[in-house]
This record gives sequence, structure tokens and C-alpha cells, in this order.
Amino acid sequence: MTFTLVIANKAYSSWSFRPWILMRHFDVAFDEIVVPLAQATTHEDILRYSPSGRCPVLRDGDILVWDSLAIIEYLAERLSQTPIWPRPQAARAEARSLAAEMHSGFMALRGLLPMNMRRPVAKRELTAEAEADVSRLEQAFSQARKRFGESGAFLFGEFSAADAMFAPVVNRLHVYDVSVTPQTRAYMDAVMALPAWRAWAAEAAAEAWRIEKYEIS
Amino acid sequence: MTFTLVIANKAYSSWSFRPWILMRHFDVAFDEIVVPLAQATTHEDILRYSPSGRCPVLRDGDILVWDSLAIIEYLAERLSQTPIWPRPQAARAEARSLAAEMHSGFMALRGLLPMNMRRPVAKRELTAEAEADVSRLEQAFSQARKRFGESGAFLFGEFSAADAMFAPVVNRLHVYDVSVTPQTRAYMDAVMALPAWRAWAAEAAAEAWRIEKYEIS
Ligand SMILES: N[C@@H](CCC(=O)N[C@@H](CS)C(=O)NCC(=O)O)C(=O)O
Ligand SMILES: N[C@@H](CCC(=O)N[C@@H](CS)C(=O)NCC(=O)O)C(=O)O
Repeated sequence: MTFTLVIANKAYSSWSFRPWILMRHFDVAFDEIVVPLAQATTHEDILRYSPSGRCPVLRDGDILVWDSLAIIEYLAERLSQTPIWPRPQAARAEARSLAAEMHSGFMALRGLLPMNMRRPVAKRELTAEAEADVSRLEQAFSQARKRFGESGAFLFGEFSAADAMFAPVVNRLHVYDVSVTPQTRAYMDAVMALPAWRAWAAEAAAEAWRIEKYEIS
Repeated sequence: MTFTLVIANKAYSSWSFRPWILMRHFDVAFDEIVVPLAQATTHEDILRYSPSGRCPVLRDGDILVWDSLAIIEYLAERLSQTPIWPRPQAARAEARSLAAEMHSGFMALRGLLPMNMRRPVAKRELTAEAEADVSRLEQAFSQARKRFGESGAFLFGEFSAADAMFAPVVNRLHVYDVSVTPQTRAYMDAVMALPAWRAWAAEAAAEAWRIEKYEIS
């Protein structure tokens, strides 16, 4: 019962980061295959693992799951003893709303501020659309924390799939030095202090690949 | 235990169509509230129901679920006797991969061909990126049908959440007269023949609102 997770570069692959930090945090053992982006053979290399031509992909025996959110739902069912989603129904409904809102939205923020685990912290001006995305994020974080987060430092108290879905956004807010409330900053610090976050960041720092289009000064 | 579903215009709201067709198909009773898009008060009107400022939103007693995919996952848990996702584990994993891939992708196709339930069928030229999206769609449909669809006309045999997630794309392929394989056409015809599809289409036809930016000749 060993899982294999195929991911792209740790420095840049926001989608890959989500299931990886989740699995590491919950001590789910897996083999890892890294396919670097923006190389001559990237597309063919990914297609060997993933029907969509994109990473991440989880392999579990004969089963393939491609897409970060689908992997999280799959694991939540498969490892039903692990509290991947918050347990209370109302918290879980809100966590899923946030995860799916993230999965399909925040385009302005994502386009302007690509995830980059190695970027020195430096301010980037936001567009009005990206500002609106940041306000919505902070409001969503604050509502979840207020309603369900009392028992811990994460959106729903203990770390859950919702935090995994927002981990790439935490990197963006941090490295582009986006102005946030003290509450958001405390949440970001809690996420960035996780051993699983630090392990990913250290491995990103050690990667040799550098892709200019994701390096925004 | 009555649900309330808040949606936007039936003519145009692709996100609203997904949970609506699913609930109707599976005979889940709900009250409906329609908030029309692109009116002076749309944003405030939606915010009365939805923390994200977007439709659809499902209300179930004190619980609010905003986001089409989150609503589907919520209902799948809440109505566990209803076969919202395909039952076999491998089929369900693939259905979730497709649903989440749709939720986060196919941007070129979605941008170029907005859903429009009332549009007369007429060809629109595709960009190369939209062509690539259509090929990926057809390949995904064909793989699911071949592996899991034998027992019926839908992606996983019987109608499931995966088909609900792709219902808006079926409208796009149809009204913009996109060239597809006979297999894709047969699938589209099966979806468009569903009583729940026809009910939505009839109500869209009866709507008074017309929004020029979604009317592409
Ligand atoms: N919806 C997918 C999106 C995955 C995605 O876009 N992955 C990028 C890397 S972060 C990719 O594989 N791109 C392939 C390429 O650029 O050739 C998910 O959540 O997993
Ligand atoms: N990820 C959301 C997206 C929903 C969305 O963008 N809805 C549009 C209507 S189709 C909306 O409410 N727009 C608000 C507005 O334009 O003011 C979902 O899947 O439900």
C-alpha cells in the first residue's frame, strides 16, 4: 500500500505543493517522482504519468488520481481514520467551500504572484483585482478561524485539507510582501512553521532548475 | 430538511447549472432563489446569501455551502444513499479527477465560449488553446466511457456528479457548433435529453434578462 506522488518542481509548482504538504503532515508514506517544468521533454514526461498532462498525480496501485483537489478527496476517503477534513459537518462544509473556491478562483492573485519558494521577500505592487482577491482571502480566513478555528492556529483549528489548499497562497502573500492583518500574518506564520512546509522549502532551495518566467523581481 | 439553492440566471450561469441539474436529476427537493447577474444590485444581492459574493450557494438549515463543486461533495455525504458519485472506488477516483480538472481548468474554452442556453446553434472559430481544451475534453470523456461507462450513456454509465460538472461544457460544444467525434456527440445528446436539462433550458428560455456580453454572435 505505498502511494506514488508525481509532482513538478518544488520551487514553483503550487498545485503539487498541496497534496505533498498534506501527505507529509499526516505522515502518509509515499514515493516521489519529480518532473521538472519548462524542459524540452516536460509534456511527454508528464503524460507518461498523467492523462491530463499535468502534475500532481497520485498512483495507488491501479488507481490514478490527477488533480490536487481530487487527490485530497481521494485520500480523505481512503484514509478515513486521518482527519484530512475537519470532522464536524458544518466545519467540513465550510472547509470544502473554501477549498473549491480556491481551486477555481483567485485568478488575479495567482496570475500576478506566481508561487516561488526561493524568492527573497520583496514587495510587488498589486492590481485592483489582485487587491480584491487578497481582501476576499483575508475575510474567508477570518470567518473560518472565528467560527471553527478556536482550538488551534489553523483555519479549522488543527491543520486540515483547507490549509493544504491555501499553502501556495501563503507563500505568495509572504514572498511578495503583501500587506495583511496581524491575524492573517499569524496564520501564515503557523503554516510556514510546519515541519512539512520546512521540508518542502528546503528541498525547493536545493533544486537546480531555475525558470525565468516564474522569477519576478 | 428542505434545501435552498441560490443561483444566477439560468441562461448564463454555468456554475449554477451544475448543482441544479444534479439535484433535479436525483429528485432532491429544494427551494430556489434566482439572483440575476449584471444588474446594479447584483453584488449586494448575492452577498446577502453568499460570503464569496458568488452563486451558487446551498443552504441546509444553518449550513451554507458556496461553490458548485463543494455543494456536490456536501450533498454526496449528506445524501449518502443517492449515487451522486459512481460507487466503485476506481470509477469514483476518476470521476473526481475529471470534476476537479474541470473546476480549475479549460480556461481557454470557457473564456471564448460562454455558456448560453438560448443561443441559436452557430459555429464559432476556435483559438489554438480552445482547440487543445476540446481535444483534452474528448479524450477525457472517451477514457471514462471506455473504462467505466459501458452500462449507460453517461461518463460513468449512469448519470453522476461528473456529468453535472460537464453539463455547461455540453451546452458550449452544442451552441457554438464545435466539431466533435460521433462518440462525444452521442454523449452530448444523452445529457441534453435528460428531463432535468430540459427543465433548466425551458426556464432559461422564459427568463426576461438579456446580458449583451454573454451574447456572442
Ligand atoms: N487542476 C490541476 C492543475 C495542475 C497544473 O496545472 N499543474 C502544472 C504544474 S503546477 C503542470 O503540470 N503543468 C504542465 C506543463 O506546464 O507542462 C491540479 O490541481 O492538479
Ligand atoms: N467557484 C464558484 C464560482 C461561482 C461564480 O463565479 N459564479 C458567478 C455566476 S456564474 C457569480 O456569482 N458572479 C457574481 C457576479 O458576477 O457578480 C463555483 O463553482 O460556484
